[in-house]
Amino acid sequence: MLTGALAAALPATLRGAPDVKLERLARLEDAGPGELALALTARYRDALTATRAGAVVVCESLLADAPPVAVLLVALEPETALGRALRLFAPPAALPEAGVHASAIVAPSARVHNTARLEAFVVVEAEAVVEAHVTVGVGGYIGARARIGEGTTLAPRVVVHAGVQLGARCCVGAHAVLGGVGFGFDAEGRLPHLGGLVVGDDVHVGAGTCIDRGTLGPTRIADRARLDNLVQVGHNAQVGVGAVLCGQVGLAGGAVVEAGAMVGGQVGIGGSGVVGAGARVAAQSGVTRPLAPGGVYSGHPAEPNRARLVRLARLKRLADAPP
Amino acid sequence: MLTGALAAALPATLRGAPDVKLERLARLEDAGPGELALALTARYRDALTATRAGAVVVCESLLADAPPVAVLLVALEPETALGRALRLFAPPAALPEAGVHASAIVAPSARVHNTARLEAFVVVEAEAVVEAHVTVGVGGYIGARARIGEGTTLAPRVVVHAGVQLGARCCVGAHAVLGGVGFGFDAEGRLPHLGGLVVGDDVHVGAGTCIDRGTLGPTRIADRARLDNLVQVGHNAQVGVGAVLCGQVGLAGGAVVEAGAMVGGQVGIGGSGVVGAGARVAAQSGVTRPLAPGGVYSGHPAEPNRARLVRLARLKRLADAPP
Amino acid sequence: MLTGALAAALPATLRGAPDVKLERLARLEDAGPGELALALTARYRDALTATRAGAVVVCESLLADAPPVAVLLVALEPETALGRALRLFAPPAALPEAGVHASAIVAPSARVHNTARLEAFVVVEAEAVVEAHVTVGVGGYIGARARIGEGTTLAPRVVVHAGVQLGARCCVGAHAVLGGVGFGFDAEGRLPHLGGLVVGDDVHVGAGTCIDRGTLGPTRIADRARLDNLVQVGHNAQVGVGAVLCGQVGLAGGAVVEAGAMVGGQVGIGGSGVVGAGARVAAQSGVTRPLAPGGVYSGHPAEPNRARLVRLARLKRLADAPP
Repeated sequence: MLTGALAAALPATLRGAPDVKLERLARLEDAGPGELALALTARYRDALTATRAGAVVVCESLLADAPPVAVLLVALEPETALGRALRLFAPPAALPEAGVHASAIVAPSARVHNTARLEAFVVVEAEAVVEAHVTVGVGGYIGARARIGEGTTLAPRVVVHAGVQLGARCCVGAHAVLGGVGFGFDAEGRLPHLGGLVVGDDVHVGAGTCIDRGTLGPTRIADRARLDNLVQVGHNAQVGVGAVLCGQVGLAGGAVVEAGAMVGGQVGIGGSGVVGAGARVAAQSGVTRPLAPGGVYSGHPAEPNRARLVRLARLKRLADAPP
Repeated sequence: MLTGALAAALPATLRGAPDVKLERLARLEDAGPGELALALTARYRDALTATRAGAVVVCESLLADAPPVAVLLVALEPETALGRALRLFAPPAALPEAGVHASAIVAPSARVHNTARLEAFVVVEAEAVVEAHVTVGVGGYIGARARIGEGTTLAPRVVVHAGVQLGARCCVGAHAVLGGVGFGFDAEGRLPHLGGLVVGDDVHVGAGTCIDRGTLGPTRIADRARLDNLVQVGHNAQVGVGAVLCGQVGLAGGAVVEAGAMVGGQVGIGGSGVVGAGARVAAQSGVTRPLAPGGVYSGHPAEPNRARLVRLARLKRLADAPP
Repeated sequence: MLTGALAAALPATLRGAPDVKLERLARLEDAGPGELALALTARYRDALTATRAGAVVVCESLLADAPPVAVLLVALEPETALGRALRLFAPPAALPEAGVHASAIVAPSARVHNTARLEAFVVVEAEAVVEAHVTVGVGGYIGARARIGEGTTLAPRVVVHAGVQLGARCCVGAHAVLGGVGFGFDAEGRLPHLGGLVVGDDVHVGAGTCIDRGTLGPTRIADRARLDNLVQVGHNAQVGVGAVLCGQVGLAGGAVVEAGAMVGGQVGIGGSGVVGAGARVAAQSGVTRPLAPGGVYSGHPAEPNRARLVRLARLKRLADAPP
């Protein structure tokens, strides 16, 4: 790709020749003459002054050092430049090669689209449906009556329990478990879990993440929700459109995260906890009750972040005051 | 099932005809004329006033709204009514079909009962024992000399390491790892872990949960203990009869949870931590020392809950007081 | 092994006959006449006074009780005695039997050393390299172009994604996921993750642990690092030589743990968090910024431990003071 076209695509202001050919993206410390590197935060200042890259995408604040680079591309929107550069140089995402591996075991009553890809040691149980352009990675398990929507990709060894409905274009990490039995008991033992799991379209589920099925109604993960690795979602929890659950978040049975909310890593949300639409919850907080939409929360129990920080600062002063 | 028989079974006081036939259990918002729904907490008040269900199991406090439902069943013990209703309408739990799938690999010296079920791609190593009516789900791994007790069910892809003893009627979630090598090292490297893992009867192990084997003596999980998903149990930890570990709890090597204790989600218990019999530990607490039986604890380090709440309230008032 | 030789090996001062033959290591409460037990902390005082073991390795402070044991070995370095005793009595660690199980699927372009062991249902993709004396446990997945270094052992069902570089003599627990796609998105969707994962030599990775690959540069786990079970390592995180991450630790994308640092269980480290070389972070802390090398830290946000404890003690006094 030529530097001029790249500048238009990022977008960026070009400082240098528009016809330098770039073969590859590389890190500042590794990049050579025909390669592009990125320096979009102050963290890269030192590496930038020593780089041998042919061209570098920089943010405005790093220009003062006059980096020794033939072609600089000053990103107009640094937040979008990284993604655009990665996408321009990423290997093209071809549709996966269709076909059912000879070792896969597919129940006669299952319906697998002829453009789907089932890799080695996959098992598809009775009446399951695997739609067009789906990839089920090595060792995947699709339970009876489950449905995997068009274009969804399952990394190796994903378990999709019986009856789970998974939407289109989802991406599920290795060893995720969708629709396991919920952790619900009463004095007579384990409760039956009849409620299932419904996952929308364009959902990301990280590696090792476990989402239980509901007791009566379903557990629901709405469109475009993003769950990182090792997240736990209890029975009948509800995750709204575009909500983000960072690594190791835990939702108890019945917890609710509304649309567009952002939940930091290792947060726990109790069974009566609700994170309102668009709210943000700081990492490691504990949500024990409904939190209003749009706010920023932290602590255990989680409360409005600003008030909590003011109180903590006052307490610090009290503790430091001479007795 | 007829409404009269249902009222006797829950038990509930019947308000309406005793001979209405109910085909299915459904959520209040989905249920139609021949279906039963439940409204056992105030959370369901709105849904109750709009339901089209043929019959609803309600708690007394929701009667004031005069729900527009032909048959009401007023639960005498709301806590038991949900479980009973679920069990009455759940599909009958048939014994699994016995047999060894053609793709399973069983060592000649292993003993697999002829009523056990080994699904596709299961591996059973030398001298392992699989007792009557056991189900080993797709891709399960049973290490050498391990024993799986009568009636136990392993979801897909459970790993049971060599020598692990697993009792009767246990239920183990997908991707659980039982008896992995402990995280114990000294200056000369990794310690051998010779101690094994002994799991009692009627134990529930959630999806993705990892229980390490002991160094010298065994790690022990006693009868009727319940471990939720993504729980970590270190080498030589001890979990007592009927103890409950909620999602993402972590037990360091040597930690102890005594009989009947309840440990909330994401709690961590250090190597010298003990949760006394019947004690309750609030979610996200950190247990660093022995906690007396029967108490309620919270915080990090965990301490008696009431004293902690009083102190936090006083500190809040101090912080809010005019300087 | 004879008691005299054992005393020399531990090392320990022998109190009793040097020619008593010991067959096995056992727990104090289980051991009989021909067996060796250990009592290296005060926790074992009661069991020691009741043991029937033929010989016991004790620490000096337990001698006052005059334990009823024919041969006592007083450990000169109690911290090393446990490991030495375990290693002396552990079954000899034979090299695994080489060979590719008939059910394993190996791409023609993969290179598998003839001393390596691939167990049942293993899949090795194109151009992957499996070096000498490697064991890939049942159901392991080795992605395209990945490399598994000499002598490394993978427990059952480990997933090694395409391109991951794993060093020599590593030990990886069951269900670990190495090199999954990172949790990085921008307004246009998921970012490509081109950066890979590089793991050094002699690294321990626990069961269920997930390490994502980097966005542009690689995620790096250096030599002799030890990661316990259910640890989450985000894209581009860096873990230094010999660093220790206890169970359920979470590293956000870009987090750094420098050489020799010790990170307690359930700690979270944010994207701008750095744990300096040799520093120690208490369990359940939250690291949000760089922490200087060598210190001891705790709390959320993590701060120097001593100052925090002093402040908490003062606040406790303030709260307890009469109004």
